[in-house]
Amino acid sequence: MFLFHAPRVENGECLFSAAESHHCAKVLRLLPGQEVWVTDGEGSLYGAELSVVSDKACMARVREVLRRPGEEGNKRPQTHIVLAPTKNIDRTEWFLEKATEVGLGRITFVCTEHSERKVVKDERVRGVLLAAMKQSQQAWLPLSDSMMPLKEYVEGRERRLLPEESYPQKFIAYCGEEYPKKDFLSVLEPDRGVEVIIGPEGDFSPAEVEFCVRNGYTPVSLASTRLRTETAALLAAWGAVLKKNALR
Amino acid sequence: MFLFHAPRVENGECLFSAAESHHCAKVLRLLPGQEVWVTDGEGSLYGAELSVVSDKACMARVREVLRRPGEEGNKRPQTHIVLAPTKNIDRTEWFLEKATEVGLGRITFVCTEHSERKVVKDERVRGVLLAAMKQSQQAWLPLSDSMMPLKEYVEGRERRLLPEESYPQKFIAYCGEEYPKKDFLSVLEPDRGVEVIIGPEGDFSPAEVEFCVRNGYTPVSLASTRLRTETAALLAAWGAVLKKNALR
Repeated sequence: MFLFHAPRVENGECLFSAAESHHCAKVLRLLPGQEVWVTDGEGSLYGAELSVVSDKACMARVREVLRRPGEEGNKRPQTHIVLAPTKNIDRTEWFLEKATEVGLGRITFVCTEHSERKVVKDERVRGVLLAAMKQSQQAWLPLSDSMMPLKEYVEGRERRLLPEESYPQKFIAYCGEEYPKKDFLSVLEPDRGVEVIIGPEGDFSPAEVEFCVRNGYTPVSLASTRLRTETAALLAAWGAVLKKNALR
Repeated sequence: MFLFHAPRVENGECLFSAAESHHCAKVLRLLPGQEVWVTDGEGSLYGAELSVVSDKACMARVREVLRRPGEEGNKRPQTHIVLAPTKNIDRTEWFLEKATEVGLGRITFVCTEHSERKVVKDERVRGVLLAAMKQSQQAWLPLSDSMMPLKEYVEGRERRLLPEESYPQKFIAYCGEEYPKKDFLSVLEPDRGVEVIIGPEGDFSPAEVEFCVRNGYTPVSLASTRLRTETAALLAAWGAVLKKNALR
């Protein structure tokens, strides 16, 4: 079943974005009457029927509500990754896709002392997140923040979260030895929201780790082997979901 | 510390392959006297000193033995992934890299009824595994099998394993509903070897699942969301390591 994203549903009609409309009309070449799924990216999933198919403005009429936020445990994934993106942006995009496939609440990009990359294209990030959400047939579109300095991120953290978001477990993953580190998967409580800050290829500086520790972050080690930045980010993103399933 | 791979160490001398020599001499431009690490890819790790640096045949003299197979739990990773490779080979190569970073015992490529890809370049696969082993500073090079039909793989399975390999937990991951599926992470015993067969984008056929079930494979579901082939393979590859750490 094809899944489309439509941010707004009014009077039982979903209006697709220009990009989604083009995909529907010109790439998939669907026709009016086709049954589709539509999500608003905020937990709702509808069974719908295409009513208007055009390159710029497809519309679909809602036939049934398949999922509502808040019902049967359907809530935004409780994982927030704060990441210094990789020099090779493909690697970061790969991480965004794989993290979203299993379930990601929010991604924030930060610039740190040893950052290799200072600029990230927000539109491109959003495109990757959207495609991954649709491909994995989920109803939650990960929230995303544009790049900002690490200090600015930590200081304004609570201000940026939506009321439904809560990531009380705060970790900073790094390779250095200046601070004692706990083992992430051992200390992680899978039923509470979790945030993990992942450093760049050159790691965090001791001063950056100290700053985060003073702001309530627990230094952790993610694995016994040395991981690339994007691999560390994915292990952190998958951690809570995997631990919850492993303990069932 | 730079880590190099040298399959043989004779009389305390490591002889690098042509590719490793080129990397050492022309890319990294190291000089005689440089301290390096050398692994044979079979669990041994040596501290060594470069003695000869040339484009074709670098050599290093062993100064100390840092790790030996069998000591302090240093054994080949106990995970074997059997994979129908993706149409886009980049995705499979991402998987190989990420699986190796955390620890992979063996990778076997199979061709199935719905396979998108019938050919895999073994040399390229080996290159990706080698680079990932070195980058993550491990001493075990994942074993790899060239592509073969699924049936041929299953029927000749035991024959191909080395004496030290043992993957008693045998799973087949697939999306269909013809057979009851267990949840992989729930049933997985993290301290025993595990093998997981991952299907192509089009999934296994019911006949293929039946064949594997008759040969001792347990059908499993890997996650509650729909995963891409290479994502499923990575979750399976990381599963045992993550569960072991999560339970500590």
